[in-house]
Amino acid sequence: MSGIDSLLYGIGLAGVAVNAASGVLEAGRKPFDMFGMVVVALAAALGGGTLRDLLLDRTVFWIADRSFLICAITAGMLTFGAARHWRLPPQLFLLPDAVGLALFTVSGTKIALALGHDWLIASVMGVVTGVVGGILRDVLCNEEPLIFTGTLYATPAWLGALLLAGLTEAGATSAVAALAGGSFVLITRLGALRWNWRLPTYSARR
Amino acid sequence: MSGIDSLLYGIGLAGVAVNAASGVLEAGRKPFDMFGMVVVALAAALGGGTLRDLLLDRTVFWIADRSFLICAITAGMLTFGAARHWRLPPQLFLLPDAVGLALFTVSGTKIALALGHDWLIASVMGVVTGVVGGILRDVLCNEEPLIFTGTLYATPAWLGALLLAGLTEAGATSAVAALAGGSFVLITRLGALRWNWRLPTYSARR
Amino acid sequence: MSGIDSLLYGIGLAGVAVNAASGVLEAGRKPFDMFGMVVVALAAALGGGTLRDLLLDRTVFWIADRSFLICAITAGMLTFGAARHWRLPPQLFLLPDAVGLALFTVSGTKIALALGHDWLIASVMGVVTGVVGGILRDVLCNEEPLIFTGTLYATPAWLGALLLAGLTEAGATSAVAALAGGSFVLITRLGALRWNWRLPTYSARR
Repeated sequence: MSGIDSLLYGIGLAGVAVNAASGVLEAGRKPFDMFGMVVVALAAALGGGTLRDLLLDRTVFWIADRSFLICAITAGMLTFGAARHWRLPPQLFLLPDAVGLALFTVSGTKIALALGHDWLIASVMGVVTGVVGGILRDVLCNEEPLIFTGTLYATPAWLGALLLAGLTEAGATSAVAALAGGSFVLITRLGALRWNWRLPTYSARR
Repeated sequence: MSGIDSLLYGIGLAGVAVNAASGVLEAGRKPFDMFGMVVVALAAALGGGTLRDLLLDRTVFWIADRSFLICAITAGMLTFGAARHWRLPPQLFLLPDAVGLALFTVSGTKIALALGHDWLIASVMGVVTGVVGGILRDVLCNEEPLIFTGTLYATPAWLGALLLAGLTEAGATSAVAALAGGSFVLITRLGALRWNWRLPTYSARR
Repeated sequence: MSGIDSLLYGIGLAGVAVNAASGVLEAGRKPFDMFGMVVVALAAALGGGTLRDLLLDRTVFWIADRSFLICAITAGMLTFGAARHWRLPPQLFLLPDAVGLALFTVSGTKIALALGHDWLIASVMGVVTGVVGGILRDVLCNEEPLIFTGTLYATPAWLGALLLAGLTEAGATSAVAALAGGSFVLITRLGALRWNWRLPTYSARR
């Protein structure tokens, strides 16, 4: 692997680990046992990429490379063990989670572009890879998906994916497009957390 | 495309748009933001056909033809904008939703028949195409699926799909079978709405 | 089919029927109608094997062999009919459900091994086949998944799948490995029911 690919692979594993940890922390508010925790962790860490691969008719990534599966199980169980001994504030994971969102979005978009899909499908696949895990996590916990209500989360992912796809179509090298798109996702997400940026809502119960 | 195919394609796009609108109206009872609305709209509009294509190992229809994806996103955002300014009663969508159910059922059944599946699998695929979107919409909104409790919805779809498959096996032309099956779904669904037809239930809390 | 294969096939059908019945009994606590019951029954009976087949890129088992679909629909409707006339205690199904869990785990693990996957992926597929149906059933009923909170359920499945995969790699015949793994699942699950074995949990609301 080239330098940029090794870096992306490493950040990908880190993203899986962080999402698995976020699954355990979320499920910790429920009376779930260790198995339930691990299932929620796996759904949060692997769900988005799995749906992307099923939709694109690729071999599911954690079946093609077991490292992601082992990483998700290990991170889930370590977080479970740690959370029984220390009080882990969910905020602890916001920074690495933003890194994971950026990486997942970049990898999902690049995979779809490499298969020959256009900017629209590719950017949707980036968003699917980035956010479906968090939706599955909340559905399994029987709660309304957090990312439907909180500070900007999927919007940075979608805009960053569009930027990546646009730069690629404009002739930028793969590394430049990935770095630009990923940085955009990361910075916008951190800005949303810092300044509480939100999308408009409406309530039908007026 | 022949005349009947163009017509079915146009009604298919209309069905996608109506289902996306119904997703936004349903999600409007929750404190979801615009992104959450669009995700629920996409799940409602594309979920049934996506599951059908995954089960039948076909290319997912909105990846093969982006028009359906663009149509669902556009309809979802327009409904979101409209619902912020005017009070849209959900009843407004019952008639076009019935048309969408009929069309989705016909297209799902015909696709499975064309792949060589028999009447049983084909009719199940018709029902999957017609109703899974509505189930996904309600699961994402953390509610019990409406179609499990209300007036007849899936039953007309299944009977219409069986009629379509039976006529095809009996030698009817594709257009006749599609029109007969689709009309049956539409009329029975409208009848169920008008006269409040329901299936039997039981309560285990006796 | 050889003797052992016929036996596994028969127990597989029985597992599908029992899971369909458990879906109806679970959904019976909700005001669902007959169609809702049947959908929950199908999700409970076929969901795990369907996800396994999608992940492994195989033809979905109930499309390849309609017997499983017919069996699930029939069992769901018979249970619905019976439950309207008699009070069926859910405990009635615990023994056949344990048999179904053992069989589903064995078949899922064996299918993945036969496709050339290693012990880790194969054992995960065994667990997916055994437990995803029950998770889907509870998500559709808008409840927290029971198997995340109760007596040991997935852990016996995973240990039995590991035993099966280990014995196969050690050179045991297919029948011996299947019987050893399946018996382990069954006996451990029954022991968990009898002596209330549970995994550790933690509550984040300390």
